[in-house]
Amino acid sequence: MCGTDILAAKPTIENPKGAGVSCSPEPHVLLNLDQGDPMAFEPYWRKMGDKCTVVIKGSELMSYLSDRRKVCWFLETELEEAIKRLHSVIGNAVVDGRHIVVGTGSTQLYQAALYALASPGGPDPISVVCAAPYYSQYQEETNYLRSGLYKWAGDAHAFSGKDGPFIEVVTSPNNPDGSIRKAVVNGPSGHQGKLIHDLAYYWPHYTPITSPADHDIMTFTFSKSTGHAGSRIGWALVKDEEVARKMTKFIEYSSIGVSKDSQHRVAKIMGVICNGCQDFKSDHNLENFFEFGRCLMAERWETLRQVVAKNGVFDLPKFPTEYCLFNGDFAESRPAFAWLKCNGDREDCEQFLKDHKIMSRGGGRFGSDPRFSRVSMLSSDEVFEQFLNRQAIFTKYSCLGELGGSSYKIARDEYTKQLWMTVMDGAYAPFHSLNVYVWIDSQHLHNFEVADAPNLNYLGVTLLQRHTWDTPTCLLHQILI
Amino acid sequence: MCGTDILAAKPTIENPKGAGVSCSPEPHVLLNLDQGDPMAFEPYWRKMGDKCTVVIKGSELMSYLSDRRKVCWFLETELEEAIKRLHSVIGNAVVDGRHIVVGTGSTQLYQAALYALASPGGPDPISVVCAAPYYSQYQEETNYLRSGLYKWAGDAHAFSGKDGPFIEVVTSPNNPDGSIRKAVVNGPSGHQGKLIHDLAYYWPHYTPITSPADHDIMTFTFSKSTGHAGSRIGWALVKDEEVARKMTKFIEYSSIGVSKDSQHRVAKIMGVICNGCQDFKSDHNLENFFEFGRCLMAERWETLRQVVAKNGVFDLPKFPTEYCLFNGDFAESRPAFAWLKCNGDREDCEQFLKDHKIMSRGGGRFGSDPRFSRVSMLSSDEVFEQFLNRQAIFTKYSCLGELGGSSYKIARDEYTKQLWMTVMDGAYAPFHSLNVYVWIDSQHLHNFEVADAPNLNYLGVTLLQRHTWDTPTCLLHQILI
Repeated sequence: MCGTDILAAKPTIENPKGAGVSCSPEPHVLLNLDQGDPMAFEPYWRKMGDKCTVVIKGSELMSYLSDRRKVCWFLETELEEAIKRLHSVIGNAVVDGRHIVVGTGSTQLYQAALYALASPGGPDPISVVCAAPYYSQYQEETNYLRSGLYKWAGDAHAFSGKDGPFIEVVTSPNNPDGSIRKAVVNGPSGHQGKLIHDLAYYWPHYTPITSPADHDIMTFTFSKSTGHAGSRIGWALVKDEEVARKMTKFIEYSSIGVSKDSQHRVAKIMGVICNGCQDFKSDHNLENFFEFGRCLMAERWETLRQVVAKNGVFDLPKFPTEYCLFNGDFAESRPAFAWLKCNGDREDCEQFLKDHKIMSRGGGRFGSDPRFSRVSMLSSDEVFEQFLNRQAIFTKYSCLGELGGSSYKIARDEYTKQLWMTVMDGAYAPFHSLNVYVWIDSQHLHNFEVADAPNLNYLGVTLLQRHTWDTPTCLLHQILI
Repeated sequence: MCGTDILAAKPTIENPKGAGVSCSPEPHVLLNLDQGDPMAFEPYWRKMGDKCTVVIKGSELMSYLSDRRKVCWFLETELEEAIKRLHSVIGNAVVDGRHIVVGTGSTQLYQAALYALASPGGPDPISVVCAAPYYSQYQEETNYLRSGLYKWAGDAHAFSGKDGPFIEVVTSPNNPDGSIRKAVVNGPSGHQGKLIHDLAYYWPHYTPITSPADHDIMTFTFSKSTGHAGSRIGWALVKDEEVARKMTKFIEYSSIGVSKDSQHRVAKIMGVICNGCQDFKSDHNLENFFEFGRCLMAERWETLRQVVAKNGVFDLPKFPTEYCLFNGDFAESRPAFAWLKCNGDREDCEQFLKDHKIMSRGGGRFGSDPRFSRVSMLSSDEVFEQFLNRQAIFTKYSCLGELGGSSYKIARDEYTKQLWMTVMDGAYAPFHSLNVYVWIDSQHLHNFEVADAPNLNYLGVTLLQRHTWDTPTCLLHQILI
């Protein structure tokens, strides 16, 4: 069902104005794929027009309180109902008999859960572990205040149940590598630690829904389920009332509740999504958000795998095929991040990408090997296309050289047909406004223009006649000044 | 200028439908004046109609990021500009050259400031102090995670500069008592600690604006300035870039930013307020929010002082008269909380109020004497009226008695003309559905109805003919079953 008119909402390089977004791939532009800013889904919401529009009057949503009788007294009733409905429609989590705690993103809820499970606390802080590679922020979020209640203890594989009481975080699908996970630590007599299940990515556009998750504490975030990161809304489904109460207390201490404006907006959007899913089940209505997301992610992963196979620079993880109860078919995971591993002798994947002006997050941040780096798959279409284009020039169309004591790299832009020369080390070369001579395959070119250099470390050369570009070896041998 | 048609928007007991709010004062209803839920301003915003309405489409405000070039990368530019404009129009704080950090309420910013001033930290946590009576939440917000960076050290008056490095919080006007404050701790050689100025209440409806505040870190909250507590938006004006950067880092760790939906809404409302203020200065336009707030607060304080003077149960703080640069006249403060002190032998003010079903916050929570209790002055008109009514029955129209081994209190409701009998101790008396006989001043009454008892600890008696109520001694001597 992919490739529908909903997908056509996304801008492409060929059709830059496709959805009202201008698109000019420029190799000198820094591509930020470090954070997982989920802009990929924006075209869908734009296409939805006013269906999800919220209107809030000046006199509405003013009180701190939502419902004093609830464990989570700042949770808006409409949001509570929307969350229950969404999980019921998707089938990805058990909600019956669970307490819902709303947070300013799941980040706040992770810390609320640590507080709830660790307080009132003993003489030593409780250890917090997660199997590596683990979400890079867990360590900082656990340690930044040097809490006496809990402390980060690293890779759960290296932790023994004998090392004392612990909290294990289970992220499934995992960030950064997309794997499906279970708790790994077991005490000597089968003693289990306390568990937090971070299910931010357990949604049908990312991974097959194989059963409704049923754990003590499960956290979700609107940022990753629909792409509305700016609203900062997360929620936890909590079995134990006392734990839910303590999590609520944490959020009270931390921020006296959670934006009601955003709660209201999220409830509205969830309702629209649920309507779309239910229509979809009856008549395969293409306005189903998760169907849009599934197609988009599948297409991105397919293209990325093709490009990666072609350039030979990286390995990508492989995922098993599973039956998705929501989509009713067999599929692989299509995670929100690509966990790239550099092949060959490249030992610092983050640096390698950075040399190509691609910001990613290196394996070391995830308790893993620096040959890995995490790249967001949720960027805007424009940025994702540029990422693919830049990958395309990693090998075949780039070469390294020396110029006046500076090493440089020459790359070709697939779309603008420009050549770009990047200075690779600290020595500054004021290329622009100098005379430039270009040879390609020993042929001296006259027919080119020096482009404006938007950054002094770049030289742009626009060729004014077409050349053969598909030679497998480096085509551009020298640029002399 | 008070008493205008804007003020008429508020509902009154006489005109319960005045602003679409039903109003039925019931002595058995618990009045929550513990939190400072700022519902007092809701009628104003209702009266403003659609002027402050925000409309947010499904595809808007999706990204985590606002402006990566800013120190506070999640601060929306429109909010930054609105904050600067608001302070310039009001004249209550210097904004030029300051960094603005937005937070999920000023609660999060208080903790961000502690983190920024205390990190990276030494072997011992830095002491955090504030002159008593201090805001009750500081202690809990400082200590709940048992941070190794900072710890609560209580009353600043009891702290010496010799006791090591410290952070002093200066709340001005102060919560709970409304006083105008300066830092109180000085080291032996004039050494000052690091300062956080909490200026949540430094707005012209609460207190005269005597000069633009100019301190290193100043925090403000939208909850108290306009009453939009549900939006959870606070902001800090910060002199030092490195401190602003660390505060931003804290909020990144704590919640990866702040709701953009609320930032957008707050920016819009601030704009409308500024327009109103500027129109007001030219033609005394009555749509000026701070003028509405000033009149409302002045009226509430005046009425409360009258009731308190009449019942003789409490003392209230007195405030000096100052010239307000914003209003252009001399006035007293009209704080957001009344800091009640019980007279006579009543030693637990919170308990005394609780006996009358009024939830307040006792002096002990503020590092002060339990003869004090803090009562919100920002409740809805309905609740505030009930609070005044209940005060009116504290003494003259109430008496204590014994009935079948249970002590009870009899009170009269000023408006419904009901008598209410409250059981004061644990012994349960099933008053309702029994025969009730009432005498007033030895006169046996036949003309009454027993009201439905909404709570088994109450007996409601409605008199069906008018009696003289203004006798200064207790009128109702016995209720016999």
